Amino acid sequence: MKISTVNIVEALTKILKNEQVTINETVRELHGRDESYHAARLPDIVVFPESTEDVSKVMIVSKEYQVPVIPFGLGSSLEGHVIPSKGGITIDFSLMNKIIEVRENDFLVKVQPGVTRTQLNKELKKHGLFFTVDPGADATLGGMAATNASGTTTVKYGVMRDQVRDLEVVMADGTIIHTGNMAAKSASGLHLNGLFVGSEGTLGCFTELTLRVYGIPEHVTAARASFATVNDAVEAVVSILQAGIPIARVELVDEPSIKQANLYSETNYKEKPTLFLEFHGNEAGLKQDVDFTKEIVKDHHCEDIEFETDNAGRNRLWEARHNLAYAFIHGYPGKKMMVTDVCLPISELAGAVEHARETVESLDLTGGIVGHVGDGNFHVLLMMDMNNAEELAKADELNERIVMYALERGGTCTGEHGVGIGKQKYQEREHGAALLVMEKIKKALDPDNLLNPNKNVKMD
Amino acid sequence: MKISTVNIVEALTKILKNEQVTINETVRELHGRDESYHAARLPDIVVFPESTEDVSKVMIVSKEYQVPVIPFGLGSSLEGHVIPSKGGITIDFSLMNKIIEVRENDFLVKVQPGVTRTQLNKELKKHGLFFTVDPGADATLGGMAATNASGTTTVKYGVMRDQVRDLEVVMADGTIIHTGNMAAKSASGLHLNGLFVGSEGTLGCFTELTLRVYGIPEHVTAARASFATVNDAVEAVVSILQAGIPIARVELVDEPSIKQANLYSETNYKEKPTLFLEFHGNEAGLKQDVDFTKEIVKDHHCEDIEFETDNAGRNRLWEARHNLAYAFIHGYPGKKMMVTDVCLPISELAGAVEHARETVESLDLTGGIVGHVGDGNFHVLLMMDMNNAEELAKADELNERIVMYALERGGTCTGEHGVGIGKQKYQEREHGAALLVMEKIKKALDPDNLLNPNKNVKMD
Repeated sequence: MKISTVNIVEALTKILKNEQVTINETVRELHGRDESYHAARLPDIVVFPESTEDVSKVMIVSKEYQVPVIPFGLGSSLEGHVIPSKGGITIDFSLMNKIIEVRENDFLVKVQPGVTRTQLNKELKKHGLFFTVDPGADATLGGMAATNASGTTTVKYGVMRDQVRDLEVVMADGTIIHTGNMAAKSASGLHLNGLFVGSEGTLGCFTELTLRVYGIPEHVTAARASFATVNDAVEAVVSILQAGIPIARVELVDEPSIKQANLYSETNYKEKPTLFLEFHGNEAGLKQDVDFTKEIVKDHHCEDIEFETDNAGRNRLWEARHNLAYAFIHGYPGKKMMVTDVCLPISELAGAVEHARETVESLDLTGGIVGHVGDGNFHVLLMMDMNNAEELAKADELNERIVMYALERGGTCTGEHGVGIGKQKYQEREHGAALLVMEKIKKALDPDNLLNPNKNVKMD
Repeated sequence: MKISTVNIVEALTKILKNEQVTINETVRELHGRDESYHAARLPDIVVFPESTEDVSKVMIVSKEYQVPVIPFGLGSSLEGHVIPSKGGITIDFSLMNKIIEVRENDFLVKVQPGVTRTQLNKELKKHGLFFTVDPGADATLGGMAATNASGTTTVKYGVMRDQVRDLEVVMADGTIIHTGNMAAKSASGLHLNGLFVGSEGTLGCFTELTLRVYGIPEHVTAARASFATVNDAVEAVVSILQAGIPIARVELVDEPSIKQANLYSETNYKEKPTLFLEFHGNEAGLKQDVDFTKEIVKDHHCEDIEFETDNAGRNRLWEARHNLAYAFIHGYPGKKMMVTDVCLPISELAGAVEHARETVESLDLTGGIVGHVGDGNFHVLLMMDMNNAEELAKADELNERIVMYALERGGTCTGEHGVGIGKQKYQEREHGAALLVMEKIKKALDPDNLLNPNKNVKMD
């Protein structure tokens, strides 16, 4: 143990209980990586705050010893967000996992940052409510706000940023602020909610979140439709959106991915580009939407469409989509998954998916493509042998070509996974002079660069 | 003319055409006020840029001569946003009024800041699209983004900030940045879109906007329902929202306002608290929504509900709401209108409206109450004799009591009109330590405090 670590631990145990501070190697190892392929690095110390005040005190120690702090939810991030790239103190929020208040009539809930998505939805169900953002992983809400998570339901309900009404944030100097309030809208002051959501722990630590929730929809219908080409599938989605049909989810799964799903689940889905859809609404409205959707997909050479309305049937219909990542992971034992994440204007999506597929093949790589097609966001799920330098270099090349294709067409290098470590090299290309504005903000709010340094907006 | 003004005009005419720079008093007078009751003050110079580069050059002159710049759309703001409180150069965007591109398949439009809302909607109609934000006034889109405007349709489609995908912004040093891109979502970098929308010209000048648009809804139904009490009306709205009925507009007009509307239009509306509603959707879904709404309002002692589906009928039904401000202005010749603008969690709205009504009466003032009740936002429209110091003091007292009531209950001092000059005195009370964070951001991006100084986040 470095002498400075001894001193910092001593300072931390003065302000926290002994069991809230650890240098145990196993615990540190659990906090040295996320679910990405990025190389692990251990924090020097892990602390487990029980309150906002605890976090504020840790910040003051961080400042005094000029040691970085890294907020940590469950480590389900995909671009190395929680890896302590300069060591330091990881703040694990697992003890701050209380649902503080459900304000049913206001469609609001107040939670601590360590509450997970499924934990929240279990509680909300009692009130006939649900939290809309579904990134796949059972992430913590603090982590989801830090990375502006989104997912399959974003096409209807929006991203994490759209759900955040207020954040309690501990700033670099230990000050505690609130970024918003409980009103549905506000034109007061500068909009800190928007700025802090997605800041990846680089501007402050979230210690409480006030989030928007929705009534559980009266009726839900799911559908699965296969098409001759990816282009047909994407154009069908554009037509559905133009018709004003309020789809709640619409996922594209390409042919090689359907093949992998069939292999994994011993199913016999038609091995064609496939859309998985979900509609929320009232019974009569849904029926009309479904009829209209049938007509639209037929116009776009849909070869086969199936609908299900009851819960079990819907789950069966969507199974291949839900299990897709597992289908690849289990199909390629010993390999690691790398996931690309660009988002483009939807008119550019079909071309981008086609370009990605061609690039995967021309580089002789293996992977499937899945897209949140209503948002123009898609992922290549790439299976990589981490000991094969040539394969890693090719994966990097693929990522770069996919990112450049998106940036040249008004898109972004990351639709929902965030910058973390993995997307830093594209920040200057994407943001140009705006990156200097981001750096000025980071510097103004964290002058010593102690808050999750080397993530998102890199300062050195 | 001050010697420094001569020098600045000279510098400006070197970079702009002569006709783009004026010190004409009539022109300056037109740029010295907005639609609010706040005292006018003239700019020293008005410029009319034709391009982003023109704006960038003006910024460099502003910096060189340390003279403030004030961006100006149409002057329809309601809290003195465009009043040059320290003099300076007003940048009038009326020559930058082009619709640059309609990207139909992407549901996006690119416009210059001087384009007005109705100008845009006229063009979009050709494509079966519409721009959702409707603040009442035919404001410019640049101004609407600068103040995070919203209005009657916000309950369904969101505020101005929700529509902005990208802003081209000229910063204080003349640098040109883009705050976003054309993708539907992004997790890249810090979210500058959110920060710049609503910054009221204090962080930069918007020179191009990329905005989200929607398909014109297939079917629209309007309704008007009167209730025994304001509380009944508000509770009916909560029940409608909880039922998941996707209302597109829901406005509350109180009893004294309906009386004023009857006087003005010689109509005979029932003089009771009234809801004006609008539903967007498909035909079958709307029918079911309307039937359900009828049941719900009955449960909340609705005394009378009428529906209209065709355009003329809908306009007739909503007439009283549309003409309400005029009904007051014409009813009190010689008086000026002051409008309060708090927003609260919806569960607090009925109490807040009742409190506001009691306060208006206890202070012996005259005015109506109208609310965007689905958002928890309401206005007292107060008619004031600007030469009556006692009346002005009472109006100020009313505003303060209404704001404090909202802030004590998790609300905001301004739901949609913004801070400008009028709401500055409540910023510290509302934001607490977060105000220091806002000041740090303002200072980092506009170190000389030249961008619309003394608005929103006040620096001196």
